[in-house]
Parts: sequence; structure tokens; C-alpha cells
Amino acid sequence: MIVFLNGNFLPEAEAFVPLNDRGFLLGDGLFETMRVAGGKPFRLAQHLERLSRGADFLKIRIPFTPKEIQKLAAQLIEKNQLPDSILRIMLTRGAGERGYSIKGADKPTLAMTLHSLPPVNPDEPPQWSLVTSSFRIPAGDVLATFKSASKLLNVLARAEAEDRGADEALLLNTNGEVAETAGGNVFWVYNDKICTVPTGRGVLPGITRAVVLEICQALGFETNKRVIKPEHLRNAAGFFVTQSALGIVPVVSFDGEPVAPSPLVDQIAGAYNKIVLRESA
Amino acid sequence: MIVFLNGNFLPEAEAFVPLNDRGFLLGDGLFETMRVAGGKPFRLAQHLERLSRGADFLKIRIPFTPKEIQKLAAQLIEKNQLPDSILRIMLTRGAGERGYSIKGADKPTLAMTLHSLPPVNPDEPPQWSLVTSSFRIPAGDVLATFKSASKLLNVLARAEAEDRGADEALLLNTNGEVAETAGGNVFWVYNDKICTVPTGRGVLPGITRAVVLEICQALGFETNKRVIKPEHLRNAAGFFVTQSALGIVPVVSFDGEPVAPSPLVDQIAGAYNKIVLRESA
Repeated sequence: MIVFLNGNFLPEAEAFVPLNDRGFLLGDGLFETMRVAGGKPFRLAQHLERLSRGADFLKIRIPFTPKEIQKLAAQLIEKNQLPDSILRIMLTRGAGERGYSIKGADKPTLAMTLHSLPPVNPDEPPQWSLVTSSFRIPAGDVLATFKSASKLLNVLARAEAEDRGADEALLLNTNGEVAETAGGNVFWVYNDKICTVPTGRGVLPGITRAVVLEICQALGFETNKRVIKPEHLRNAAGFFVTQSALGIVPVVSFDGEPVAPSPLVDQIAGAYNKIVLRESA
Repeated sequence: MIVFLNGNFLPEAEAFVPLNDRGFLLGDGLFETMRVAGGKPFRLAQHLERLSRGADFLKIRIPFTPKEIQKLAAQLIEKNQLPDSILRIMLTRGAGERGYSIKGADKPTLAMTLHSLPPVNPDEPPQWSLVTSSFRIPAGDVLATFKSASKLLNVLARAEAEDRGADEALLLNTNGEVAETAGGNVFWVYNDKICTVPTGRGVLPGITRAVVLEICQALGFETNKRVIKPEHLRNAAGFFVTQSALGIVPVVSFDGEPVAPSPLVDQIAGAYNKIVLRESA
């Protein structure tokens, strides 16, 4: 695999960052992950907008313009001949001194890597079992408004879920309210309404989440953003996770109990796949 | 400067980690920072004990025994001829696949770097102005019980404090209680008692914090671990921060108001310096 690192394309096996890169030292950076379809990163503009918002907040300069990143990403996809894949864009504060101060760290690192799509059996599209994590996200966490490179909490939540035989972890915030999964946003169907959690309570404003809300509007499905406790999800029908890498993933079991399916989820997933195809053309 | 990286000593300018090291991708690792005095890392055993506890929790194998790390650290100090310095030990999960799952990531990275002590004018030992951060640590955060490599919150808190003209940030937990500073533990004097915050509420069990509690016992000072709101620190006398790199740092101003000094702090700082000297001999 060829990767992009600070202006150069090079084989992954030769791609190294300095030991004193603050991304490595302190998780002092950001990333974006997105689906690539038909050679195009899906909703790249929205991902770069979120990256840029995060970079402003962190005071990291993005060393390329959105146009340049788009062009470089296209070259990366071309060089790897992977028109259907997953793209990861990474931005860190670059090399710095020991300690937390950002003073003097002004040479950011920008990297992009491409990854094969997980193999999917079309007869058995991915479905997840979810378990509630013992880890909590701070309610109102500003770090949850963009994808930071300090993701140990998510790593541990996922590992705990896998240890318990599940696919993914449902994370609550410190108020005990449903926030998100380790790697995605949650939706559920209630009284024929498509419900999700409002952002700003430890919830990442996911790009796929936004696409699903667009789809609901287009299909005339009523939506509802509401704060809920996990016990209210126990009787949910049509529970699903949205994720930029995998799209829409139905949840078939939650904390060991089966989740009732909903035909609305199939309609949304179908519409989502159509949009990805249309925009890749 | 010579650094240690996965079994090799090499110049810092040649020390690189793979782009896909999970330390870089996700902050999936740990670190320890400590004072080196007389060629010996101060309280190395306690730092390695905390590192080992964190590594167990994260399920990262430490690729060297404590004895080997001690020997390698001694070689690093010798090679750099820096008997009085700061040592940083880093452990990450190493290279892995895209995504949060830890499956298959079983080649951890261990690195050690040495850093010069900040220049100190003996007539003006460091003193800090502190401001309360707008960022909050989750109350009861398990990640706060060891030094994780996901430290963006601390980076942002320090940057915010420096923006406001202060030296360091006081972080509260999500209950609004005093937790710690971006890079240290807090102590204050109240009714001649040496007070600090109990661990387990988003508070790192600092090694220097433990040494100060030892000193208080030896000097016959009464101590008190209590949960407090930041407003109760406004009238504190003898407010100080403990930190493995810098030791005991008196706080001279808090949220713009001067802090009354306390002779007890000088006694504790004197005793601390004596212990560092004694154990370095």
C-alpha cells in the first residue's frame, strides 16, 4: 500500500513519523475516516470541514488547502488502484518539546492512508451486537465535537465489548445518558419516528449521521433528537449505528437481548447506498 | 540527544515510529515522566509499577522487565551524559489495523527519551499562576488512574491557561470538583493541615503526590484528603502543585488573585529536595 505523508507518496513500510511527534507523545491531533466509492471519498467536503473546525480549535494549521487534499487523495486512490476503500486523513501538531505546552510546535504532520473494505458477504450484510460500556464520555465534552487522536477511551470500550463477545460498545456520558458507540452514532425507531441523540452531550456530529437525517427528510420520515437513558433502548425497534467507514449497521442485539428489526431501517440503508453510488459517479 | 527505541540506542534525529503505530493513530499507549538525579531516575520503581498497572488494564505487554528498563535507562543517561535531567518512558500498542479494535496488535513500542532540566535561577525558583480550565475531566475516569498517551484534554487546558497569561490550568471533574492540574496534583494548606484531593475522582495517583504524603508523615504534619469545589481554594494559603519533572511548585496566583504563602510549603519542598538528593547518592 502507498501512503501519503507530509507531501510525499511512499510505501507504507517506509512511512515513519518522528518519535517526538505530538500525535505519538500525547494524542495531540485529529483524524477523519471515510468511505471511498468510485474513486471518490464520500462527503470529503464535510469531513474536511469538521477537520478544519477541529484544527481551528486545537490551533493546528492544516498544511494543505481542501482542494489540494482532494487532489492528493485522488492521487493516493489512483496509485493504490483502490476506488472502493476507506480513507484515513490524519493531522497532528508535529514535533514538539516534552510537556503539554504547544509553544514552538508549528510543523504539523498530515498523512493519508487507504484501507481495503472489510469483506462483505452480500447475503449477510454486517449486523452488530452492542453492549453498554463501563466507560463514560464527559457530558458536554468539547473534544467529542471532532475526531481527536486521543481515543484511548474508545479503544478500551471496543476491547471491553469484544471481550464480552459483542461487536461494539454503547457509550454513555457522565450523566448516564446515551452518547454514541465507540466508533459511530446511534439511531433507533420509536413510534415510526427516526430518533437520534442531539450533539453537544459528548456526541460526535457524524457525517453519516447527517446523511441519515437528510435521507429521513427526503423520504418524509419524521425525526426526533432526544436525550435518553440506555434502558429506553431496550425495547427499541430498528436500532442502528451510523459510521463513515461501514455506513449503516443494524443492531441485532443489545446487552444480550434481541432487537426487533424495522422495515424503516432497510429503507434508510437502501437510500444511503443509492446516495453513495450516485455521488461516486 | 540519544534515545532508546525498541531495543536500540540511536540519535533523536533518526528515531521514528511507524505511521500506523497505534500511539500515533489513537493515543493508544501510556507514558511516565520522572526526574533523573545523580544519574538515577527518582522513584523509578513506583513509576514502573504505575506503568505496569496501566499496561495490564490496557492489555499491552511491556517488552522489558523492570530490571531491564532500569539498566537501559542507566545506559541512556550515561550515553547522554545527563545525570540531572528528565526521563520520559513511552509504551504504545504498536502497529495495528485501522479502527479501534486491538485484535492483532501485539508488537508494543517501548521508547525512552532524556530531556534537559528547565533552566532554574536559584534566586527565583519556579512559581506558578493557575487558572481554572473550561475543560472537565470525567469524574471517576479510570483513564485518570495512569498516564495515558491520550492527553489532548491536558494539552488544550494548558494552552488555554497560557493564552490567559497563566502558567498552568486547574482542571475540575464533571461534578465541578477540583481534580488536578494539566500536568500535576494539587495540595493546599488549611488550618495547618496539608490537604489534597482523593484519587478516584479523575485524579492521577501522582508519584510526587505520594512522596509529599510520606514527607508529611515524617514531619508530623497532619494530612487530609478531601473533595472540594474550586471556590474553596480561593482563600487557600500554601497552595502548591506536585509534578515528577519539577517537584514541588508553589502557586502564587489563582484565577488572578494572589495566594498567601505558607512556611509549611517551604519545609515540604526542602524535605523533598533532600529525599531526591539522598536517593540519588
